[in-house]
Amino acid sequence: ANAADIAKGRAKAVQCQACHGMDGIAKIPEAPNLAGQNEDYLIKALKDFKSGARQNDMMSLVAKPLSDDDIANLAAFYHSLR
Amino acid sequence: ANAADIAKGRAKAVQCQACHGMDGIAKIPEAPNLAGQNEDYLIKALKDFKSGARQNDMMSLVAKPLSDDDIANLAAFYHSLR
Repeated sequence: ANAADIAKGRAKAVQCQACHGMDGIAKIPEAPNLAGQNEDYLIKALKDFKSGARQNDMMSLVAKPLSDDDIANLAAFYHSLR
Repeated sequence: ANAADIAKGRAKAVQCQACHGMDGIAKIPEAPNLAGQNEDYLIKALKDFKSGARQNDMMSLVAKPLSDDDIANLAAFYHSLR
């Protein structure tokens, strides 16, 4: 895997924005804000949703097809927001 | 359960501060920032750790003894931080 790419993360985050916003501020009360969140935490969350270790109706579905690079890029993007 | 009490949440959060800070900014990379996080999300996270629906070495232990009021108060406290 290459170094995380914030621009690629931003592009991928288009599919996250309905709930988490392109600004990382959640648009629905059940979703967490992600802006500035710790990168390691975000990577673990996405990997756990992908593996099934963590369950959520929406996230378990959308995390499934993400590659390790997608996950790293998304985490870097949301971490970069303030 | 009564309405959430931010002051009681702050008092209870003394046990959370080593990882999440009294300012809601995580002190270790594996822990999420909680300042300003959505209250509904925080309540669900704590209830899921308590029930075992969500697993984490530290959180599964510390969430176990929390009452519904503790959970509501902690969520209100961390949500109130900016």
